[in-house]
Amino acid sequence: MDLGNTITAQQPAVIWLTGLSGSGKSTIAARVSEELERRGCDVEILDGDIVRNVFPTGFSRQERNEHIRRMGFIAGLLNRHGVWVICSFISPYRESRDFARSQARRFLEVYLATPLSECERRDPKGLYMRARRGEIRQFTGLDDPYEPPEHPDLVLDTSRISVEEAAARVVAAAFREPKGMG
Amino acid sequence: MDLGNTITAQQPAVIWLTGLSGSGKSTIAARVSEELERRGCDVEILDGDIVRNVFPTGFSRQERNEHIRRMGFIAGLLNRHGVWVICSFISPYRESRDFARSQARRFLEVYLATPLSECERRDPKGLYMRARRGEIRQFTGLDDPYEPPEHPDLVLDTSRISVEEAAARVVAAAFREPKGMG
Repeated sequence: MDLGNTITAQQPAVIWLTGLSGSGKSTIAARVSEELERRGCDVEILDGDIVRNVFPTGFSRQERNEHIRRMGFIAGLLNRHGVWVICSFISPYRESRDFARSQARRFLEVYLATPLSECERRDPKGLYMRARRGEIRQFTGLDDPYEPPEHPDLVLDTSRISVEEAAARVVAAAFREPKGMG
Repeated sequence: MDLGNTITAQQPAVIWLTGLSGSGKSTIAARVSEELERRGCDVEILDGDIVRNVFPTGFSRQERNEHIRRMGFIAGLLNRHGVWVICSFISPYRESRDFARSQARRFLEVYLATPLSECERRDPKGLYMRARRGEIRQFTGLDDPYEPPEHPDLVLDTSRISVEEAAARVVAAAFREPKGMG
């Protein structure tokens, strides 16, 4: 018997949304949070835009990794106290995402695989335009790499499915029956 | 009726221990944590020595304030999800301690007022000796200021009372009956 699969369906998880700017992370995080709260879960969202004030960071590889390690530490701390934590960070590097996984009691890595061309077409904050003009450097997907997850728990492409559908799939994964017990 | 006083006796708090190096913070934090857990509370300790690995910091006024703001943010986040958080940081400046207070649902500021002479006599980590030799700069109490709390919830001097007594007073404050309802 694989004890790794004997989690109960409602065991709180860190739901880690990773993907390019504009891939749909924050929007999906908000919808998933609503749905989990509707089901009575204790939920916290950690979002790059929300925490920037208290946790400013630079954009070198080292600074980004340190920042994501911190966010992973905080998410894990909450999760170990029974909180569902929805994290919405580009988190481009495998190393610090793996650290975040190591901190959580249960971790779902959700890869927002929306293509760069679509993210750039949306450009909700005008960041791609500024990066193309050279006003922003080290921009993930343009002049800084994004390392896709090798074994994500879920892959979603919001150029092919709606936000509603994407959020529903995350919630289904969060509440899935343990393997072999369904 | 003052709603500020209508907290229930068991409402989880951030218990913030502030004071010089060697004043007894970590030791008291451990004893208080044990006692709260014995009472069935969900407890987390945030300690300078524990978090340093993920949250390294420098020792300028700005760096220390930023660090304590981050710790206060994390403590508040946990506390708002029902966790008792015992924080053990020198936290020498009022500004960032006040920020920490602002983040918590309930906050108890516990001032470890153990005199410098006694802290230096104990010198559990040999830091005072190194600071006196000039190997460490910006050392709180020697060449960096400690700003005592102006309105602490509790003042303890561990040169005059035992660790057991100090911890008992913290627990009593944490579980005190709300004013006017005792």
